[in-house]
Amino acid sequence: MNEMLLQLGKNAKDAETELRNITTNKKNEVLEAVADHLVECTEQLLSANAIDVEHGKANHMPEGLVDRLLLTRERIEGMAEGLRQLVSLEDPIGEVTGMKKRPNGLLIGQKRVPLGVVGIIYEARPNVTADAFGLCFKTGNVVILKGGSDALHSNEAIVNCIRETLGAHGVTENAIQLIADTSRETAAEFMKMNEYVDVLIPRGGKGLIKAVVNQSTIPVIETGTGNCHIYVDESADLDMAVNIILNAKTQRVGVCNACESLLVHENVKEKLLPVLAKRLQEKHVEMRADKEAQTLMPGAVAATEEDWGTEYLDYILSIKVVHNVDEAIAHINKYNTGHSEAIITENYSNAQKFLDEVDAAAVYVNASTRFTDGFEFGYGAEIGISTQKLHARGPMGLLALTTTKYVIYGNGQIRP
Amino acid sequence: MNEMLLQLGKNAKDAETELRNITTNKKNEVLEAVADHLVECTEQLLSANAIDVEHGKANHMPEGLVDRLLLTRERIEGMAEGLRQLVSLEDPIGEVTGMKKRPNGLLIGQKRVPLGVVGIIYEARPNVTADAFGLCFKTGNVVILKGGSDALHSNEAIVNCIRETLGAHGVTENAIQLIADTSRETAAEFMKMNEYVDVLIPRGGKGLIKAVVNQSTIPVIETGTGNCHIYVDESADLDMAVNIILNAKTQRVGVCNACESLLVHENVKEKLLPVLAKRLQEKHVEMRADKEAQTLMPGAVAATEEDWGTEYLDYILSIKVVHNVDEAIAHINKYNTGHSEAIITENYSNAQKFLDEVDAAAVYVNASTRFTDGFEFGYGAEIGISTQKLHARGPMGLLALTTTKYVIYGNGQIRP
Repeated sequence: MNEMLLQLGKNAKDAETELRNITTNKKNEVLEAVADHLVECTEQLLSANAIDVEHGKANHMPEGLVDRLLLTRERIEGMAEGLRQLVSLEDPIGEVTGMKKRPNGLLIGQKRVPLGVVGIIYEARPNVTADAFGLCFKTGNVVILKGGSDALHSNEAIVNCIRETLGAHGVTENAIQLIADTSRETAAEFMKMNEYVDVLIPRGGKGLIKAVVNQSTIPVIETGTGNCHIYVDESADLDMAVNIILNAKTQRVGVCNACESLLVHENVKEKLLPVLAKRLQEKHVEMRADKEAQTLMPGAVAATEEDWGTEYLDYILSIKVVHNVDEAIAHINKYNTGHSEAIITENYSNAQKFLDEVDAAAVYVNASTRFTDGFEFGYGAEIGISTQKLHARGPMGLLALTTTKYVIYGNGQIRP
Repeated sequence: MNEMLLQLGKNAKDAETELRNITTNKKNEVLEAVADHLVECTEQLLSANAIDVEHGKANHMPEGLVDRLLLTRERIEGMAEGLRQLVSLEDPIGEVTGMKKRPNGLLIGQKRVPLGVVGIIYEARPNVTADAFGLCFKTGNVVILKGGSDALHSNEAIVNCIRETLGAHGVTENAIQLIADTSRETAAEFMKMNEYVDVLIPRGGKGLIKAVVNQSTIPVIETGTGNCHIYVDESADLDMAVNIILNAKTQRVGVCNACESLLVHENVKEKLLPVLAKRLQEKHVEMRADKEAQTLMPGAVAATEEDWGTEYLDYILSIKVVHNVDEAIAHINKYNTGHSEAIITENYSNAQKFLDEVDAAAVYVNASTRFTDGFEFGYGAEIGISTQKLHARGPMGLLALTTTKYVIYGNGQIRP
């Protein structure tokens, strides 16, 4: 293995031992201090970021990405504020649950402990650097970051600032390490460091996530893509339906819990679709509809098979007429990405059926899919939204960065 | 993709939809019926198994493996009994926990649901076939089995018998499917069927598990290997220590929770080791000791560096003298496989330190490591012992074969 990665791995293992027993008070003290120091380092962060931004522009980076890359005084304050919010969250580490006396006298419980070493692979978004550190540190995890090459100077500046604070507070600086070599070869090697890294979390677009899932031998928590549907049932309150569809589609379009596809029961298509078409056009939403819907939606173009499986992340909505709730559920289970799905209905049995049979992280009755989010669900912080079924599903709060170990108190028990 | 695998995957997806809503009563009825029918099929199972056993012997299969492969009337009864025991276990599916009203009126809870499609890759142990089906079926999961080529006739006979029962009870036969092509190429393709399989569980030796972890792009639950330690502290009750060590080493040697390595505090080495050596020799345990221990244990040979990292699964024990509990913990965290570790001590602080700092699925004070087991922990059934940190850690009961989905009841909420 690459010497640099090996050293990083060893450093992380040593730091893991130290963080395993750090108190909540100490963690909170450090998080506050890191927040303060990030703001103190504003000038350094801005000048490092300026290099990345200039470089990005010179390389014709799309405007949206440049915006994500850009740091401002306000955004640095925002990173600091994110860390301060973590202080007020309950520390999940150390709780022992289910402690029970077995018939042979053994007392067995499950203690919540850090995962150990968390690897984060992400794109050119420097705010993820501080964010991921905060979530991992609050849960006693060591973090190794592999950011995009486009944000290298920014990430280095942020990590240096964090490490300075750790050192000043007598905590191992290796609680956070950044892989400075942003080559693909190094990334590929990093994804096979099972001996040193307990879990890998990719944060970014579809391509990044797929690459990590395919290459990593370390367990991966897959976050993200959302081809989310809303199904308007025969019995729906149609005003409510229009409001929810517009909210889920247009309140923010570039996010994974936005609605991408609409299914409408044939018995309400005539009442709903013309009205909806008008409202969608006001918001400049492109409509891609099947034949039945197209005739009722002026301005709609014909949807192709590809549309049903596409997460647009844009002002585009696919629309299809279905004949009953079963057809809607079957369509959703065929094309969805396991993120968020909603039914609008006043029918009790159809609501229950939809909740039971749709296979997704979050299934809604009569509400916008836009609520699938750590803050909205009441966790107060989020490491991402898991679309896989193992370990964590849906919005992941601090608990997703922990595991348990069995602790067993005996007095000489042997197995007969 | 291989046409056969693709068809298996599609069948599994269809079956998944059916099993998502099957009632506990129906599942229990089928489990009872499968148990009965397996016993009814005894003659067919024995003749199919005879082909595998004969073939194994002709190919010089080691005796231990032939024994694992062999079916007898008693063992078939045992498989049936295992299925009947599942009937009495509580069905975890459908429970909704943490249901809370959010400030905006949304009612959000987490519903326990099946994982979906579970893949099991295992070696020539036909009992795993019935066992894995039972655990998966009780939790509403579809199972795809990839057994060893050495047990193919036995596995086919068992799977046919189960599918007959499913059909007779009006349940999809594809709740269980066996990959009849036992080639490595097919196995390798199977491990990349992310679209159809939600989790892969390898059951078998170290080599098999490692191959699956390295090749699979499907999330894997790693079960298994156990390089388990016992540390005898300065303050230990030495009679208790001897009893526990002998139990953990010799009660059954070929299992993952058996003790493989002993650490002894230098202040008790003279009292403990000569007595222990005698008792171990009575049980024909080979002792591989470091220099300090070797002089106190007649008959002990010198341990090599390799010994510290070896899971013997045999009548062999490595022994090392340490200077304090910290050295013991550091040694364990360096060489263990994250399975089961024990301290024998009367010292409160050392007991707590050991529980806190040793990184393993199960950490014991004053008890034998042999208790790490689904039945002993009170789960009544076990799909394996997870030595990884994600999703499940330690003995995995039915809960490990489930996930959750968020169910959200609204009345028109949109995101501001």
